[in-house]
Amino acid sequence: MNKRLRYKPLEKRLMTAEDAAARIQNGMVVGVSGFARSGDTKAVLHALLELTKERKDFQFDLYTGASLGEIDGKLAEAGLLRRRLPFQLNHVMRNAINKREIKFTDLHLSDMPEHIRSGALPDVDLAIVEAVAITDDGYIVPSTSVGNNALFVERAKEVIVELNLAQPLELEGIHDIYAPEEQMRNPIGILKPDDRIGIPAIPVDPDKIIGVVLTDMGDTPSTIVKPDKETEQMAQQMMSFFQNEVDEGRLTKSLMPLQSGIGSVANAVLYGFLESDFHDLTLYSEVIQDAVFDLIDAGKINFASTSAIVLSRDYMDKVLNHIQDYKDKILIRPQEISNHPEVIRRLGVIAMNTAVEVDIYGNVNSTHLEGTKMMNGIGGSGDFARNARLAIFVTKSVKKNGDISSIVPFVSHVDHNEHDVDIIVTEQGVADLRGKSPIERAYEIIENCAHPDYKSLLWKYLDEAVERGGHTPHVLEKAFSFHERLAATGTMREKALVGGGVRTRLK
Amino acid sequence: MNKRLRYKPLEKRLMTAEDAAARIQNGMVVGVSGFARSGDTKAVLHALLELTKERKDFQFDLYTGASLGEIDGKLAEAGLLRRRLPFQLNHVMRNAINKREIKFTDLHLSDMPEHIRSGALPDVDLAIVEAVAITDDGYIVPSTSVGNNALFVERAKEVIVELNLAQPLELEGIHDIYAPEEQMRNPIGILKPDDRIGIPAIPVDPDKIIGVVLTDMGDTPSTIVKPDKETEQMAQQMMSFFQNEVDEGRLTKSLMPLQSGIGSVANAVLYGFLESDFHDLTLYSEVIQDAVFDLIDAGKINFASTSAIVLSRDYMDKVLNHIQDYKDKILIRPQEISNHPEVIRRLGVIAMNTAVEVDIYGNVNSTHLEGTKMMNGIGGSGDFARNARLAIFVTKSVKKNGDISSIVPFVSHVDHNEHDVDIIVTEQGVADLRGKSPIERAYEIIENCAHPDYKSLLWKYLDEAVERGGHTPHVLEKAFSFHERLAATGTMREKALVGGGVRTRLK
Ligand SMILES: CC(C)(COP(=O)(O)OP(=O)(O)OC[C@H]1O[C@@H](n2cnc3c(N)ncnc32)[C@H](O)[C@@H]1OP(=O)(O)O)[C@@H](O)C(=O)NCCC(=O)NCCS
Ligand SMILES: CC(C)(COP(=O)(O)OP(=O)(O)OC[C@H]1O[C@@H](n2cnc3c(N)ncnc32)[C@H](O)[C@@H]1OP(=O)(O)O)[C@@H](O)C(=O)NCCC(=O)NCCS
Repeated sequence: MNKRLRYKPLEKRLMTAEDAAARIQNGMVVGVSGFARSGDTKAVLHALLELTKERKDFQFDLYTGASLGEIDGKLAEAGLLRRRLPFQLNHVMRNAINKREIKFTDLHLSDMPEHIRSGALPDVDLAIVEAVAITDDGYIVPSTSVGNNALFVERAKEVIVELNLAQPLELEGIHDIYAPEEQMRNPIGILKPDDRIGIPAIPVDPDKIIGVVLTDMGDTPSTIVKPDKETEQMAQQMMSFFQNEVDEGRLTKSLMPLQSGIGSVANAVLYGFLESDFHDLTLYSEVIQDAVFDLIDAGKINFASTSAIVLSRDYMDKVLNHIQDYKDKILIRPQEISNHPEVIRRLGVIAMNTAVEVDIYGNVNSTHLEGTKMMNGIGGSGDFARNARLAIFVTKSVKKNGDISSIVPFVSHVDHNEHDVDIIVTEQGVADLRGKSPIERAYEIIENCAHPDYKSLLWKYLDEAVERGGHTPHVLEKAFSFHERLAATGTMREKALVGGGVRTRLK
Repeated sequence: MNKRLRYKPLEKRLMTAEDAAARIQNGMVVGVSGFARSGDTKAVLHALLELTKERKDFQFDLYTGASLGEIDGKLAEAGLLRRRLPFQLNHVMRNAINKREIKFTDLHLSDMPEHIRSGALPDVDLAIVEAVAITDDGYIVPSTSVGNNALFVERAKEVIVELNLAQPLELEGIHDIYAPEEQMRNPIGILKPDDRIGIPAIPVDPDKIIGVVLTDMGDTPSTIVKPDKETEQMAQQMMSFFQNEVDEGRLTKSLMPLQSGIGSVANAVLYGFLESDFHDLTLYSEVIQDAVFDLIDAGKINFASTSAIVLSRDYMDKVLNHIQDYKDKILIRPQEISNHPEVIRRLGVIAMNTAVEVDIYGNVNSTHLEGTKMMNGIGGSGDFARNARLAIFVTKSVKKNGDISSIVPFVSHVDHNEHDVDIIVTEQGVADLRGKSPIERAYEIIENCAHPDYKSLLWKYLDEAVERGGHTPHVLEKAFSFHERLAATGTMREKALVGGGVRTRLK
């Protein structure tokens, strides 16, 4: 404890989670730590659940870095949230959002701090952040993520710290806390992924810290599933693509700083580098998952910059007990810096994110099922795709036993448009959209990425659309025919038209 | 001439437009100057039309800054273009693109130079750029736009200069030429709109200049129409919005650096500032049109940074003959700098662009009519909207005598999605989408921005969608019903349902 709570005056502010929870008031805006389940708070919001059990009228707005652990589901279930932003990844909360019981605002992760600073969003009343230590100066040392912590602490009138004794104190020193000034501001001085521009803890006037709560629970582990046949094929497709870029002289064997999104697919694809002969890789990413640690161990990745360390159960022990060994290879930043357009463009980041569905012209849906139901949110995928040197989207060509094609005539929601998407990768192959016209993109995507079961259907749509004409041919009344068929029959397949079909001549 | 061609060895390279045109070969990639009709080349491409009159097989790829003057239409008509990028604004070329006779690649203007540097696009073989002078060192002084000139000159193996004696030599000194290094690079050092980071001319090894052609024609004037009742109302709506931001303490009377898009609507809206009490305004824009000069004259705008000066016939004389008077108030940059995500985010730019249509959830279509026919291209609207402090889109609520509603259930093409759009302005009012959930956005947009004739129809769609449920409710098979009705009946109106309708209760 002496090592963890080094600013002595705060000893007097040690309090129970219940007492801390009582500071949360009806209608407040509460900003909490937590990004992709990592470094979230583990006690105060739980205590609030107890405290408000009998109250029907109690609701507050919850701001985070990104998704929290299981507490997101519990808060949703209890009906405590009026508004939630900017991202979530929990099936209970998802259901509540889709019933519109919670107002969800789905934001680019880099935009949220700007929106708070510019007054576009209501400001934070209370901040609750997890820490591994409080320094001699009363500064807060975050745990496995930084997210929006520094901003919440700066803006909030009052701050509660959850000092988590189960998170390794050795995390201290891994963080780089930097707060951009108001616009118009100075450049963000990062010139390569391992550049440090800030300090290792969140600066705060300790008088603002109204309570310190001791906790000792680990993060909710990530639920990513192991690579399977399709994701291994996707990894191979990706490696061939990169190899070809090297052969053509567009990249070197160290590529450019990589960003890799959340989820099973992104993790599996990264494993492709293990057996490849790419080397001296770096990451400039918002999350790093299991695969990154294996790649560091294998000497493939030299350095990884992130806003959160996100691990499955097995990797938690493996990595967190030896975090000291990784401290010269990893750096955790605020999400507005990990996702900053300025830095992403400057470094020439290669962005790899997962799509829900992709259309024949290269528009990508990352968020909505059937155009209506929220999955998780856009997260940082837009921050990266728009400003990246290469914006790559990966997805299996079919989902749900083949009843859903990930390639459709018109995506039911557009998160990344044709202007932003360079490369599509499925287990079937790679579509290179760079510099191409819409019709050329359609040929590339259908031919290389669609599942054989859906090719005829897609060619048929394209043929009919081309008949009507235009730069980006469509048959608007059939644009969502795949989705309508799914809703009506439970499958996007059309019996008569299963099969590869013949590639139509380019017109 | 002595003042214009100051590097004497190049006098030997003076040549006719015909001789210069003969250097363009079948299959080449030619990069020419020209941005929003300004500073385009006026002789060599015209001579090429003559030269290739009898040739059926001759085609080349044309890269520009943005739209050219009337030559774009002539090249399209002659069938000389294989591929055209990244933007155009010409009805003949538009038709050819929509018949897919020309492959058109519609790019964010800031992305094009990155795509060339990274090898995503084929490199430029030949550059043809307009200049007002060639300096003692053989450097090229651009005319009324910079666009991609510096990049084309750098990358091309050979350069042809059109020395235009009709463009005022006094433009010299107005340009700020800066070429970003390869990624990973240094910060772009612009901290306010009037910062200069480069040199006043395009550096080039004069040996690369294979020809200098003398010309004396002005730019093709812009065809913007004067403000009308609706655009005046839109300007008033905009001014009230800004005034409210000031009252709420989110902005000062000098706002933040403004960007204003091309076209009649954007120009008309800017006039709103003339009678307002905002002052000491600055612009960080890609184009400046007529209104900007009146605002400078009126002492409202202190400084305007741009990539092109774009004027109607009347304003050409007025402005270009007195350009000397504006030289401490205007600066012309390469388009990758005027539109650079890094600078836009840093300065906190307020972006104002015009939409073709907007949907009830705040997605914006800037490019496609009925989802299929290309209008002009996305231009810089995405560069600005994504990285702006405030992304505002303006549009009249109806077009074509009211037969087309600019507010539709689902836009037929998405150029800017719900995550990027902050404010919608029509002559009816202002929708403030910041921090709102989809359903809240729909209420804001239908209630405040839709034309009364289409409100019932939009409420009806929303009600039916809400019945189905979801975070972003839709009835996919009716999502394009407005567009389908337009195609079938010539109007989006539905007889039985014209009228304001009742605002549905928020659910
Ligand atoms: C797109 C995203 C949901 C994919 O997640 P993933 O775990 O890698 O990929 P999966 O393909 O396994 O998809 C997850 C689930 O969605 C389902 N799904 C995916 N696409 C679907 C579609 N088109 N229709 C219906 N269901 C679909 C899958 O079947 C799977 O369901 P299950 O959990 O019942 O098996 C996830 O990457 C995401 O939320 N992305 C947006 C945020 C982002 O990109 N952030 C980037 C920086 S971190
Ligand atoms: C959107 C854009 C076409 C509007 O141009 P504008 O001249 O300001 O606005 P208008 O509303 O007068 O529209 C121009 C024409 O398109 C037509 N139009 C606009 N919306 C339409 C719609 N939804 N359906 C059919 N026609 C439409 C108008 O009727 C008008 O036709 P006309 O020339 O026959 O009168 C133009 O701003 C553009 O190309 N924007 C994209 C590029 C961009 O934003 N760059 C930003 C930085 S420069």
